Amino acid sequence: MAGNSAIVLLSGGQDSATCLSLACRAHESILAIAFDYGQRHRIELEKAKKLSSLAGCPLRVIDATFISQLSDNALTSDTLPITTEPGQLPSTFVPGRNLFFLSMAAVIARQHKIDTIYTGVCQTDFSGYPDCRDDFIKSAEQTINLAMDTRLSIKTPLMHLTKSETVLLMKEQGNLSWYAHTHTCYNGQAPACGQCPACQLRLNGFREANINDPLPYI
Amino acid sequence: MAGNSAIVLLSGGQDSATCLSLACRAHESILAIAFDYGQRHRIELEKAKKLSSLAGCPLRVIDATFISQLSDNALTSDTLPITTEPGQLPSTFVPGRNLFFLSMAAVIARQHKIDTIYTGVCQTDFSGYPDCRDDFIKSAEQTINLAMDTRLSIKTPLMHLTKSETVLLMKEQGNLSWYAHTHTCYNGQAPACGQCPACQLRLNGFREANINDPLPYI
Repeated sequence: MAGNSAIVLLSGGQDSATCLSLACRAHESILAIAFDYGQRHRIELEKAKKLSSLAGCPLRVIDATFISQLSDNALTSDTLPITTEPGQLPSTFVPGRNLFFLSMAAVIARQHKIDTIYTGVCQTDFSGYPDCRDDFIKSAEQTINLAMDTRLSIKTPLMHLTKSETVLLMKEQGNLSWYAHTHTCYNGQAPACGQCPACQLRLNGFREANINDPLPYI
Repeated sequence: MAGNSAIVLLSGGQDSATCLSLACRAHESILAIAFDYGQRHRIELEKAKKLSSLAGCPLRVIDATFISQLSDNALTSDTLPITTEPGQLPSTFVPGRNLFFLSMAAVIARQHKIDTIYTGVCQTDFSGYPDCRDDFIKSAEQTINLAMDTRLSIKTPLMHLTKSETVLLMKEQGNLSWYAHTHTCYNGQAPACGQCPACQLRLNGFREANINDPLPYI
């Protein structure tokens, strides 16, 4: 890999699927990366595999299970409940997650002489995760480049889009059908529950865009 | 742990031993952290254990072996030679290492409500590692705090000291004898070889400070 190549961080969710589609248009070759960080919902990794095969690009699954050993959170624990308390970060916040993901992707990018990384983070989705904000991404890009003497660019094409704008963007690219192979549900269900905050956010986006979500729901 | 506590990154080398001594003076309680990143010289981890016992603080050894899977370098490979080519980073550079170490320590600090992390990085030692420079550390501190909504402070008391100044600082604190339990030699030898660039740098520091290195040499 070299030249006009990019890495796409692929979580198996709707946003990273959209990023993958955008990156496939803009680059000659793509390496998709998914992280096994001990997440509750193993289905995410299956979806990442399916999405990369739809995009015709290789997928590398990185063992990032060290993350779940560092702190307690509801996304990597089977026992902690998913909660949101006013004024606190949601219990689904995995501290350092995006910083680890971006840093690991950057080491691989450097190794393969790739200078662009895509991530589907979005500060308009009100998740309350500080590592989805634009100021974090810009700071991480600078820190990573200082750490390794590189000139990597971290692209976040969805940063300021609403969920419905993201859906419309995917429609424009003719890849709406990929969304049938994504995972969003916080309850880890397939068909999706349609009730949890993550499903609700997703469904609202499709509703506003006046487009049917191809994902099966209960 | 809380209040006046700090984390010290302990590599088992001379600089991190000095940091540990400084931190013990300034804080009521210390948590030492060492990283197993698949380094060639397992002796570093033994030295970290000995140093933390001399300091009377607990040591947590973190599994960071994922780092060695991400790229090729001479410190985690048994087959790559240790080389320095003009204009290139030395083959001992482990891309992202200090960024991963600081990020992992930060997650643990957040979990334990500790707000200070010490690292013995030093930009005057001419190692050529970009992630030992002050601009990297300042950027990493900002990025980590943005990632996790924290106000961690990363302290680098040796950043602008020469090796001889570091030795004199340790003497002032009455802990020169700790240096007998540190590891520096790039050839992984104990007694140390005294010939490799790392041993030479160390010995020069003691010579300039006019102090005997308590470490056994061949």
